[in-house]
Amino acid sequence: MNYSKAIKKLREIDKEIVLITHIAGVLDWDQESVPPAGVDERAVQLGWLEKKIHLLSTSNEMGELLSSLGADEHNPEGSTELTQNDRALVRILFTNWNRERKLDASFVQEFAETTSRAHGIWAEARKSDDFSKFSGTLQHIIDLIREKSSRYGFKDDPYDPLLDTFEPGTTTAEVVTLFSKMREDLLEVLDKMKGSERVDDSFLYQKYPQDKLESITHEILGMIGFDFNRGGIGKATHPYTTSLGADDIRITNRYTEPSLAAPLFTALHEGGHALYEQGSSHALTAGSSLSGGASFAFHESQSRLWENIIGRGKAFWSYFYPRLSATFSSQLSEISLQQFLRAINTVEPTFIRTEADEVTYGLHIILRFELERALLSGSLEVKDLPEAWNDRMVTLLGIRPSSNRKGVLQDVHWSMGEFGYFPTYAMGNLYGAQIYQTMAHDIDIESLVANGQLTTINEWLHEHVYKYGSIYEPKKLLEKISGRPLDTNCFAEYLKNKYLRGGLL
Amino acid sequence: MNYSKAIKKLREIDKEIVLITHIAGVLDWDQESVPPAGVDERAVQLGWLEKKIHLLSTSNEMGELLSSLGADEHNPEGSTELTQNDRALVRILFTNWNRERKLDASFVQEFAETTSRAHGIWAEARKSDDFSKFSGTLQHIIDLIREKSSRYGFKDDPYDPLLDTFEPGTTTAEVVTLFSKMREDLLEVLDKMKGSERVDDSFLYQKYPQDKLESITHEILGMIGFDFNRGGIGKATHPYTTSLGADDIRITNRYTEPSLAAPLFTALHEGGHALYEQGSSHALTAGSSLSGGASFAFHESQSRLWENIIGRGKAFWSYFYPRLSATFSSQLSEISLQQFLRAINTVEPTFIRTEADEVTYGLHIILRFELERALLSGSLEVKDLPEAWNDRMVTLLGIRPSSNRKGVLQDVHWSMGEFGYFPTYAMGNLYGAQIYQTMAHDIDIESLVANGQLTTINEWLHEHVYKYGSIYEPKKLLEKISGRPLDTNCFAEYLKNKYLRGGLL
Repeated sequence: MNYSKAIKKLREIDKEIVLITHIAGVLDWDQESVPPAGVDERAVQLGWLEKKIHLLSTSNEMGELLSSLGADEHNPEGSTELTQNDRALVRILFTNWNRERKLDASFVQEFAETTSRAHGIWAEARKSDDFSKFSGTLQHIIDLIREKSSRYGFKDDPYDPLLDTFEPGTTTAEVVTLFSKMREDLLEVLDKMKGSERVDDSFLYQKYPQDKLESITHEILGMIGFDFNRGGIGKATHPYTTSLGADDIRITNRYTEPSLAAPLFTALHEGGHALYEQGSSHALTAGSSLSGGASFAFHESQSRLWENIIGRGKAFWSYFYPRLSATFSSQLSEISLQQFLRAINTVEPTFIRTEADEVTYGLHIILRFELERALLSGSLEVKDLPEAWNDRMVTLLGIRPSSNRKGVLQDVHWSMGEFGYFPTYAMGNLYGAQIYQTMAHDIDIESLVANGQLTTINEWLHEHVYKYGSIYEPKKLLEKISGRPLDTNCFAEYLKNKYLRGGLL
Repeated sequence: MNYSKAIKKLREIDKEIVLITHIAGVLDWDQESVPPAGVDERAVQLGWLEKKIHLLSTSNEMGELLSSLGADEHNPEGSTELTQNDRALVRILFTNWNRERKLDASFVQEFAETTSRAHGIWAEARKSDDFSKFSGTLQHIIDLIREKSSRYGFKDDPYDPLLDTFEPGTTTAEVVTLFSKMREDLLEVLDKMKGSERVDDSFLYQKYPQDKLESITHEILGMIGFDFNRGGIGKATHPYTTSLGADDIRITNRYTEPSLAAPLFTALHEGGHALYEQGSSHALTAGSSLSGGASFAFHESQSRLWENIIGRGKAFWSYFYPRLSATFSSQLSEISLQQFLRAINTVEPTFIRTEADEVTYGLHIILRFELERALLSGSLEVKDLPEAWNDRMVTLLGIRPSSNRKGVLQDVHWSMGEFGYFPTYAMGNLYGAQIYQTMAHDIDIESLVANGQLTTINEWLHEHVYKYGSIYEPKKLLEKISGRPLDTNCFAEYLKNKYLRGGLL
């Protein structure tokens, strides 16, 4: 088979894989509507789709095609005679083929069944605040994770192949270096903020009518460039963004809490993910594996750039606060822009990661990264995990959770077998700040945002980030954008400027 | 391969077919949420699922299994050594295999593409009230329908194999006989009602708050036995019932029109379908082809039995009207039970089938049945169809549509290539009345309904209809239930009793 024939066939199979992924996205989207008795059956339906994807992406045919295109372990991109985009497709499919082939069907099934059952067990343990209900299952999952890591294979660190599935090309050692510096930065900022006055943010927790919250968050999404012709907005208990098609990108929000901030910043966060998906979904071809973001951390960089750097900034609210306070006049008429800005930027150590501010957030991630590595290496036993969690919270954040629900049982990830995922959240902050700094060289972001010209920001990001989809590995893409490798300086400078040098006010 | 091995394999494949059908059900359910640009892609996703079903159900492996179980054209149920339920499964799968194998892939694709495109063309033609926009496409569809009929093969009538896909075992000649008698009955009732006073039903078309409509229709569904643990309720422009799993049966309703009757009777109609699906979804095994209703007409019999015979009857509202009028006190406080009953049972010739009363409804169906047969045989040309429609409306109902939107362009079915479907709607009324009469021998329906004991009705239907799923062909099932073949007498007697002998009041 010549290259052009092989690449054509490869694209066909890839298109089918992406199509099935989108079908699974529809089933996920509907998940909260499944009646109680239908839950198991829905899991079987999703399992069927996942198996189809697994079979297609690990088939002998796939292996032969990739090999005929020159791909192997030393050269995952295949022949240099291929176009850059085709080499990217070969790289993505070969990396996946080469990794997933190492797991046999019975292991894949045991992993899927264990983590599927684990979700309910974890939820029950969290509900009753009883870690012992979850510990046996967690031990089983850690055993499977160890086996997975060893089957994937690694040179330096058993955490490497796990991290690589979420953040291709990044090693554990690199994360250790980044996080060590980030930890210093965050603790420095936190330390210097000590003693600063706690603002009264109680106005954020009044009753805000749901219909108005819905319409104002829709307005914000339209303003930043969300394309309603190619997407939609739903409701979910735990907000997320998902693709049901290259032209069907959906986000969710929740309006049930008595809080103004939650729906606003959920809209901006998920909106950031959605802009990236909508912008990248036609990278090369709609519905190919080159569509979508470069990595989990890159995706998170876009959600956090919009949510925090832009969305919690002075410029954004100097433009939009008049509109917000007019919409909620009975709740906000007495609140100045400055009070509002300070309230939505409250920094203080808290127990729950998803509610953490942008300074303490990274410390929550460091804690999980360290514990995951310790569990994997065996230096920490599951029975000692709650205590280790709580001790480390004291070391990093100076507070000790009064319950496991506020501690080790708060996150769903481990029950899903997602070891190696957490670091990407904090790396998202680092990527986001470095991209923002680069953008600030090109355009006057503050002035554009203050004038409501947010689509110009979207356009810059489209041109420098979104349109490349996952054509480049994350590290390469960042170098292409910013001209240098990832470091922690931009993020540290951003925080210091905002919180220590009065940049917010 | 021995029988037990073969039947085990057959059940496995069947289970996969049903699983994929349910996945397609999830995609259908989400259809109204697809953004404009995502519509084509969603069609491709559904096409992929349909192709998987087609491949599984027409495979050589399926043919060999069925053959090894003794099934052939003369004996579609297979060996008598099999259990009754297994013979039913063999019958369903063989009938489908034998039929669908006669269509080659290119024909299936052309049919799917033509009807997929036709939907938009029909919708546009209806919107602009311009039949000429649709006539070319309709001609193409009729050519394909003729080819389909001829490929399927028939002895007596080209309409037979089309009808058989919707109503297995029923011939065109039988429908002709039934409809000829039904027409006499309906026209007799209609004629004798002439000159009766038109009641003032304007109170039905006031503004009814949506939240109250939602909660009262949910209450009605709970009352008749809809299992919310195994199903749910959504909203849709055109209400329907669908299965997303054996334990995930969903119905839709709409609350947007300024009408009280539409949401109430949509709930009872779709609720009837849902009770049948929920009741039959574990026939033999959950998620097998034996689950679900015996046929389209049988399904319709259950929706119409609940909507009309029970739901528009005196007993139901003598029980529930006090609750309804208390809920909508500002709209209904001046309206007596008798006024309400007369208003929801208004009989008069109208143009739109879906809004027709239970007396004139069958005449709408006869019109379509006759036109479909004439188009198929070639005795009627597409260009003459609108005129033929309007003339026949005058003959049957005494009224002439002023536009094609109110005439030939009103229904979606022909654009979907569904020739042979319409008769099942009217046969549903006949089946429903005959089943109701049988049930009335066993239990005192009127008194149970008048006391709100509707779950007893549900239980009788479960025991005599629902639990059999599609184990029996519709004709056999009716004989099993009522002890005799289908006739028009029960339905005619029901109408005469209600409308001519004062049974309503």
